[in-house]
Amino acid sequence: MFKKILIANRGEIALRIIRSCKELGIPTVAVYSEADKESLHVIFADEAVCIGPSSSKESYLKIPSILSAAAITGADAIHPGYGFLAENADFSDICAESGFTFIGPTGDAIRKMGDKAFAKETMKKVGVPVVPGSEGVVNDVESAKIIAKEIGYPIMLKASAGGGGKGMRIVFQEDELENAFQTASNEANAAFGNPDLYLEKFIENPRHIEIQVMGDIDGKVYAYGERDCSIQRRHQKLIEESPSPFINDEVRKKMEEAAILGAESVNYRGAGTIEFLVDKYMNFYFIEMNTRIQVEHPVTEMVRNIDLIKNQILVAAGYGLEDKPKEPRGHAIEFRINAEDPDYNFRPSPGVIDFLHFPGGFGVRIDSHSYNEYVIPPYYDSLIAKMIVWGTDRIHAIRRAKRALEEFKIEGIKTTIPFHIKVLENENFINGNFDTSFIEKYFK
Amino acid sequence: MFKKILIANRGEIALRIIRSCKELGIPTVAVYSEADKESLHVIFADEAVCIGPSSSKESYLKIPSILSAAAITGADAIHPGYGFLAENADFSDICAESGFTFIGPTGDAIRKMGDKAFAKETMKKVGVPVVPGSEGVVNDVESAKIIAKEIGYPIMLKASAGGGGKGMRIVFQEDELENAFQTASNEANAAFGNPDLYLEKFIENPRHIEIQVMGDIDGKVYAYGERDCSIQRRHQKLIEESPSPFINDEVRKKMEEAAILGAESVNYRGAGTIEFLVDKYMNFYFIEMNTRIQVEHPVTEMVRNIDLIKNQILVAAGYGLEDKPKEPRGHAIEFRINAEDPDYNFRPSPGVIDFLHFPGGFGVRIDSHSYNEYVIPPYYDSLIAKMIVWGTDRIHAIRRAKRALEEFKIEGIKTTIPFHIKVLENENFINGNFDTSFIEKYFK
Repeated sequence: MFKKILIANRGEIALRIIRSCKELGIPTVAVYSEADKESLHVIFADEAVCIGPSSSKESYLKIPSILSAAAITGADAIHPGYGFLAENADFSDICAESGFTFIGPTGDAIRKMGDKAFAKETMKKVGVPVVPGSEGVVNDVESAKIIAKEIGYPIMLKASAGGGGKGMRIVFQEDELENAFQTASNEANAAFGNPDLYLEKFIENPRHIEIQVMGDIDGKVYAYGERDCSIQRRHQKLIEESPSPFINDEVRKKMEEAAILGAESVNYRGAGTIEFLVDKYMNFYFIEMNTRIQVEHPVTEMVRNIDLIKNQILVAAGYGLEDKPKEPRGHAIEFRINAEDPDYNFRPSPGVIDFLHFPGGFGVRIDSHSYNEYVIPPYYDSLIAKMIVWGTDRIHAIRRAKRALEEFKIEGIKTTIPFHIKVLENENFINGNFDTSFIEKYFK
Repeated sequence: MFKKILIANRGEIALRIIRSCKELGIPTVAVYSEADKESLHVIFADEAVCIGPSSSKESYLKIPSILSAAAITGADAIHPGYGFLAENADFSDICAESGFTFIGPTGDAIRKMGDKAFAKETMKKVGVPVVPGSEGVVNDVESAKIIAKEIGYPIMLKASAGGGGKGMRIVFQEDELENAFQTASNEANAAFGNPDLYLEKFIENPRHIEIQVMGDIDGKVYAYGERDCSIQRRHQKLIEESPSPFINDEVRKKMEEAAILGAESVNYRGAGTIEFLVDKYMNFYFIEMNTRIQVEHPVTEMVRNIDLIKNQILVAAGYGLEDKPKEPRGHAIEFRINAEDPDYNFRPSPGVIDFLHFPGGFGVRIDSHSYNEYVIPPYYDSLIAKMIVWGTDRIHAIRRAKRALEEFKIEGIKTTIPFHIKVLENENFINGNFDTSFIEKYFK
């Protein structure tokens, strides 16, 4: 087992990793920027090393500083958490070359799955459905028309170099295509200096459902069921749950099988997530793989009674995956408590927490690095706590969540707590009748 | 279902009951003494009624005030919690006569089980082992000698009117009996104005293990496994866990069967606990039944995934017990966080909580009415929080408990947190090698 683990992250996930390390009896090293010196991950780690100023680039993203901190403290393994360097293939390689175990997949696996075209190709090869579309760039309107006819409307034009909705157009019928193609291409050129477009089938009102997998060094891969992450705002997940209120056992099984095939095809080791869009007919399409632990991993932990972070560490240390995943029990929902003002377009709301009170009682889990009088720095993401509830079934979990959110007090800053309470009162949410457009539809 | 439930209690258990009511969608009424107006149970209930000054006698024990509060607010059921009026048979009867459902057993069942001699007799009749002893008062030394010879030494002499260790003597052999009988009788007379003694077999180094039962209106009784409560100080439980690290499946099953027989014999309805002493040979002896929910009920909830308070309410409303108890999963341990100074003989330490931080993460449950700057009143018991941890096995739960207790910060007052950490570091505790003398042995 590792002698000491350095956690190359901050906030709630750094604390989450420290907790599992303590439970395994492994000493920990926290790294922190100057802005984070009062953070709980610094206070609760066995050792802590300041690695630079508040800017992420100069601290949490600075590989040499992190490796130095590991060397100085005698750590022999590095856990990257999520975000920052977690999906940086070079970092994984450099760790290995420098003699540290990277608690995550190899650089090769990250690289392969990080290349979306390659990932899609890989999944297709092993028979996993992907969103149908052009293979690469579409050169002109005429080619686009041919492909669109083949895969069927509606289709989506996307900027090759793009992201964040720029250079993106939904096309419902052929006579709209020419116009859309021109404007999307122009927009892409203006935004990214590259007019190239590709084309994909547009999945209407999809669910976002992902499968948790874990692979060990012997090539064994297990799937631990799904998380439904359809409650999103601008592609940012806000509420996640397991099991999904939408899919049935047969589809779940097929998705798990597809996820395992995908992970096996890159000899995947560690925790990973295979993300799918699911249409109203329960057809599922691979969209991407996240080669790391995810923010929403606790919902899986709570219905499966497994500690995914602990398993990441064990697998990285060379232990084989032990038992088959247990059957899920009950229902879990996670709420992201962000320091954001839901009444003002979710703008960030950093600052001092004047008063903090966590809810408690049966089936309520809080993962948070916040405390009374904690000052939320403005430099990083706005996640200040995750509340995860467990109930015997979905309705029970929803009721428990509501009473717990009503107990949750954070004063001095704005948070997403009141927003979550409103979601819990929405009949479509209660009935499980929603897709990724839910927030846009009901919370504009 | 009930229209509104009044909670005739305070502190963490009042809040615990409010939580289950909220999850069931039932409005709640809190009652409070003047000393408790800032308590969380008052803040989180839908309505709150002040029922008197700080003295319990003038508030939480004052039946007319509680019934008035119920009548004024239109409550149709009353949950007594534990302590105060929970095991007051007259209160159960008066509630019923006044048209309120008492969420607990009938006055008759409380009365029968509250009379220790009757309870023992009842258990004996249905074949449940009880601590062997005299049937009632022993008139003189000669009779005591005859009975002691029959049941075997060591024996214990106890004051009939007694409690709290007064008029109690352990006798290891016959030639000590005469002396002990005289001194115990004198002591009893001095303390209680009644020299009467009875005699029981003295169980050496026993475990205190209890079985949770629940009965419904149709006479169905289920048992939900055991809680090992051997970590006690002066008969006050401090740490409770399930499953017991001591007994085996066969004994567990026998104890459950005995508990069910006992509960059935008084047509028991609601939640109850049958307490046993277990000797080193795993013989178990009934000691008493608690006809209420107990402080330590969450350990059962966490290994069984059931909400005992919710089930109490459902059963009181006439719903039959639904499913058979599920198999336990993993291991749970509860730690009582008391406002007491373990370095000074556990003397009470009321006052202002200057800073409070609850631990969190996977498998950690906090049941508490405390918050930042809460003032703990000096009038009631010193329990300010319960921390319950769940782990896949006992060692996992112990490690999780240790890391969580290290995260638990309460400033301004003294608490039992440092004491619990020391217990978790004690090798005999870790190995499950302890009995009710553990604290006396290692923490003097």
